[in-house]
Amino acid sequence: MSEMTDVATARRSRITPEREAELYAAVLDLLREVGYDALTMDAVAARTRSSKATLYRQWGGKAELVVKAMRHSKPGRIADVDTGSLRGDLHTLVTLEDDCTMERNSSLMRALAMAVHSNPDLMRAFKELLVEPEMDEFKRVMQRAIDRGEVRADCPAREYIVHMLVGAFATRTLIDDLPPTQEFLRSYIDAVVLPALGVPTT
Amino acid sequence: MSEMTDVATARRSRITPEREAELYAAVLDLLREVGYDALTMDAVAARTRSSKATLYRQWGGKAELVVKAMRHSKPGRIADVDTGSLRGDLHTLVTLEDDCTMERNSSLMRALAMAVHSNPDLMRAFKELLVEPEMDEFKRVMQRAIDRGEVRADCPAREYIVHMLVGAFATRTLIDDLPPTQEFLRSYIDAVVLPALGVPTT
Repeated sequence: MSEMTDVATARRSRITPEREAELYAAVLDLLREVGYDALTMDAVAARTRSSKATLYRQWGGKAELVVKAMRHSKPGRIADVDTGSLRGDLHTLVTLEDDCTMERNSSLMRALAMAVHSNPDLMRAFKELLVEPEMDEFKRVMQRAIDRGEVRADCPAREYIVHMLVGAFATRTLIDDLPPTQEFLRSYIDAVVLPALGVPTT
Repeated sequence: MSEMTDVATARRSRITPEREAELYAAVLDLLREVGYDALTMDAVAARTRSSKATLYRQWGGKAELVVKAMRHSKPGRIADVDTGSLRGDLHTLVTLEDDCTMERNSSLMRALAMAVHSNPDLMRAFKELLVEPEMDEFKRVMQRAIDRGEVRADCPAREYIVHMLVGAFATRTLIDDLPPTQEFLRSYIDAVVLPALGVPTT
């Protein structure tokens, strides 16, 4: 666990999980309404009837608050999925979010992914609190597949599992003018991800 | 060729290719400086010493002008590449742009890809003038591979060739904090794209 996470967990323990969930929901609403750059701690404080001092004490800053709110919206942890096969694990992972949630999160992630390029502190929080934990969980999914003998330990595609999945998610709207859905992602997993990893899909 | 392209070609024929290249370069400079939403036809007119009436007559509007400028910056056409093997074609395609140009274009494409979601006319121009022609050219590359017997006609990954390549390009910075380079894209082609298509990489 990173130092950033430790510090934030210690800070956060002063508020209840319910209050925390309420705060995160308000932050995501604001993010949808005005975007990252125009979102202010003043607006979060007003919307959630908190003091700015509390927000800064609990989260350190806007970047960390926004990224934690995004992470909190993710329904279920990749680490809890263990179906006994890589295909089973990957198909289950894409059903953790229903299509409606996925479409809402997809536009939020797009906005954040864009904003990181002009906000170094957001980039750092995004990588440390969202990208890296997700990469680590995918590595565990992949390691289990290797341990089961499904994927060769020297398979070059294993390094690119997150690029493949995030790439499919990110390009669906742009290329096909359609939201990423569970059905699309399952089809992509069977057509691209598993064959690239040398895993039979039937 | 689409109707939009026909009309624009007819309009554009009134200016010289040199003047056109100069205009497109100025549009991309402005796009880098202020972003799509803040870019105005007034600013383009001032920067290029043209009249706004000329710009509108030649390009119809901001969306079409910006997308044409992006397309013009692409060095070389996919359709001209025909090496005799799919691996050869794909490796050649990623060397059409040197790493420096690729990094510059990558941040421009990111900005545009973001702006399309709040600008329906930009989305239309982007799809009609950039995405669809590129998809068509990749389809031709893929059809030749099928005709040569390299890829099976019913290979499910053939529908996703552009998602794979654009996805790799788009996720490289976000996931690895590194710009997409020719070396990365060649490695991704060998690790993911060719195996997904059932093509041996050696």
